[in-house]
Amino acid sequence: MPTVEVISVGTELLLGQILNTHGQYLGRELASLGLDLYYQTSVGDNRARIIQAFARAWERSDVVILTGGVGPTDDDLTKEAVAGFFGLDLVEDAASRRSIEEFFTHRGRQMTPNNLKQALMPRGAKPLPNPNGTAPGVLLETGGKAAVILPGPPAELVPMFTEHVRPYLAERWGGGRSVIVSRVLRLCGIGESDAETRVKDILARQDNPTIAPLASGGEVTFRLTAKAPSPGEAETLLAGAEAEMRRRLGDFIYGLDDQSLSDVVGDQMTRAGLTIALAESCTGGLIGHQLTQRPGSSGYFRLGVTAYANEAKAVVLGVPRQTLEHHGAVSEETALAMAQGVRRVAGTDLAVATTGIAGPGGGTPEKPVGLVYGALLWPGGEDIRRWEFIGGRRHIRERAAFAALTMLWSHLKGVRRTGPTTGGAGRGPSAGV
Amino acid sequence: MPTVEVISVGTELLLGQILNTHGQYLGRELASLGLDLYYQTSVGDNRARIIQAFARAWERSDVVILTGGVGPTDDDLTKEAVAGFFGLDLVEDAASRRSIEEFFTHRGRQMTPNNLKQALMPRGAKPLPNPNGTAPGVLLETGGKAAVILPGPPAELVPMFTEHVRPYLAERWGGGRSVIVSRVLRLCGIGESDAETRVKDILARQDNPTIAPLASGGEVTFRLTAKAPSPGEAETLLAGAEAEMRRRLGDFIYGLDDQSLSDVVGDQMTRAGLTIALAESCTGGLIGHQLTQRPGSSGYFRLGVTAYANEAKAVVLGVPRQTLEHHGAVSEETALAMAQGVRRVAGTDLAVATTGIAGPGGGTPEKPVGLVYGALLWPGGEDIRRWEFIGGRRHIRERAAFAALTMLWSHLKGVRRTGPTTGGAGRGPSAGV
Repeated sequence: MPTVEVISVGTELLLGQILNTHGQYLGRELASLGLDLYYQTSVGDNRARIIQAFARAWERSDVVILTGGVGPTDDDLTKEAVAGFFGLDLVEDAASRRSIEEFFTHRGRQMTPNNLKQALMPRGAKPLPNPNGTAPGVLLETGGKAAVILPGPPAELVPMFTEHVRPYLAERWGGGRSVIVSRVLRLCGIGESDAETRVKDILARQDNPTIAPLASGGEVTFRLTAKAPSPGEAETLLAGAEAEMRRRLGDFIYGLDDQSLSDVVGDQMTRAGLTIALAESCTGGLIGHQLTQRPGSSGYFRLGVTAYANEAKAVVLGVPRQTLEHHGAVSEETALAMAQGVRRVAGTDLAVATTGIAGPGGGTPEKPVGLVYGALLWPGGEDIRRWEFIGGRRHIRERAAFAALTMLWSHLKGVRRTGPTTGGAGRGPSAGV
Repeated sequence: MPTVEVISVGTELLLGQILNTHGQYLGRELASLGLDLYYQTSVGDNRARIIQAFARAWERSDVVILTGGVGPTDDDLTKEAVAGFFGLDLVEDAASRRSIEEFFTHRGRQMTPNNLKQALMPRGAKPLPNPNGTAPGVLLETGGKAAVILPGPPAELVPMFTEHVRPYLAERWGGGRSVIVSRVLRLCGIGESDAETRVKDILARQDNPTIAPLASGGEVTFRLTAKAPSPGEAETLLAGAEAEMRRRLGDFIYGLDDQSLSDVVGDQMTRAGLTIALAESCTGGLIGHQLTQRPGSSGYFRLGVTAYANEAKAVVLGVPRQTLEHHGAVSEETALAMAQGVRRVAGTDLAVATTGIAGPGGGTPEKPVGLVYGALLWPGGEDIRRWEFIGGRRHIRERAAFAALTMLWSHLKGVRRTGPTTGGAGRGPSAGV
């Protein structure tokens, strides 16, 4: 099985000034190609140390990918170091020079002589075109191995990897070996330990795909990772394991991989042809922001009101002053009145309201920081929830928005988890989700 | 100068399933201690390869920090590998065992026998207490060098590093050497190339601190990095360079390091004792979300209305139907009417409105995707801007929110950039910011 190694070049990485996101991107890509990656190294903009790291990697791996250090300045030494290691000259590549000159002309910017340094290639290497910047990549095959040099900016590296390096690796190094493919199941409406308990035996038994719970900022997620001779076979394994997980947890799985709950809810709204209005207090516009992030959201989203002040709750949403005085702004009654008010004003099918105490101040023993009420109205029914979230202000707001979207998601898929939910009888506390 | 090396252990890192954030955190910490970090390596959960990476690091560095691989499972091999490299037994540490048992008792959870593996230490090593988890850290000094093992979860690693490792490194390895400290200047109201042109000579001339523009998602920022014998001297260098930058760009610098524009505006509002209401369309609640992220925002934030539908603009904000029909929802006139409407309803000192086309659909040749109007009202005056942003929906929304907050920030600091800004005479297009 061919092994690949990644070397990230840049003093900024070592000083912690930037985060090494290439490591993650390339790791995932190489795994999906079935190539083994055993080591990743970061090294500064220092010729001797780049050579030292490269020599070590070249000795033990079949393909070495270097990222960064191909800019126009004197600090950019990656090509020089690799050429030096092999004892190769750097020679100007005419096509790269033309493309650098065009890059500047096209943008109406002045090219500095330094930029021409970027057209230099180790003799015998193949330049990889860079439509998104001035530094071409480098592919150097020698002694039955390969060195690949990619530019540092992600907006240049990712397209170059996708268009040139990935196909090369697949064809030259990847054929017929096993690939690793992952899938993430995203859950809402259930707590982490409850979810894990329900699938404990599956988690213990499964080894291909492996299934592992992921900590991800309060959300409950599971990652399935399959290893198989081909992507198709890996997908089949994933599909089988996903089906088994869905038998236990299907009521709570709202999406896969990078899907967001708000986008899934947007899809539901679009399919159902329903409209919605929001009355937010402690979430401060976050639910509206999330629901309108999706293209086409103007098809269902009509109005959001963030009523922070009691006066705004009364005047804009028509929350009775009596309700605010008797029950307080953070109460079941106020949440319901807010939702009713915004639906009346906007004339929508659905309405969602939140009111709570995001902290750090404003809590009392009866109404502590983290207490949030959520209300959902639909034609002919309503649901009200009480949550207590722990954590800082940002976390409480995010959890509250997620919980409110969960109510909406559950309603829209026609599944209710606990008890009757229409009319006043359905109200009552429920566990924080 | 002593050198430190970091080895991150975990197959998940190599598969790209998690992002290596420790590299950045430790890099920044070591730089601020004046310790040189020349290499960072990631390696999988494999005993032979952990030993190989460790041997290499031990040979060329004074201190080797390993992170991860100290959990309770069979995959967790970091301590075993390091002990094996030195030919040391693993022996149970009584205090660590007690603390693991207490950790479980305290949380009412069942301890598995595996967890006791975490109380094992290479003979002669010093355990580092972990109040946030079950894996103690390890400090092993031998042959005039040191190996440090830290747990993988950031919530455990960071406190352990701060409380135990940082003081140890400073005392044993750091004394009297030069430190590296960074500061980031954050700008608004000016474009990237304009800002760079104004300080080009400073950037070229400065080498301690170095000053470099940072690409950060459309915002204009500069990073100053100083190297000095002590933190105090580094701060002095930074202060001098910051003062020089402020002479050229002071009108546009809103904050430092991790400060957000919305938090700075919140501080301004609080100091000024003013209240605000928002009428958002294309930004969908994002400005409200940002302004209410700050604790104490209920002191100035009264009401936010996200009026996506024309009907909502007319009914809730009182935008004249004639204005909507003649000029369209995306127009200077509608932006102004939205701001006037929300201020009338909320009775605030200030009001901000946005209306635009976030895309991807909805653009026309006259009103393309990315066109956004922003309006700001204050007692006795108003300002209206027209922006054209490029990029995807998310980027356009974020840029529009940032530009609207920039208007607010500029007003609140009493500085106007372009032309007269009170009354209708001040209206007109301005460059996208």
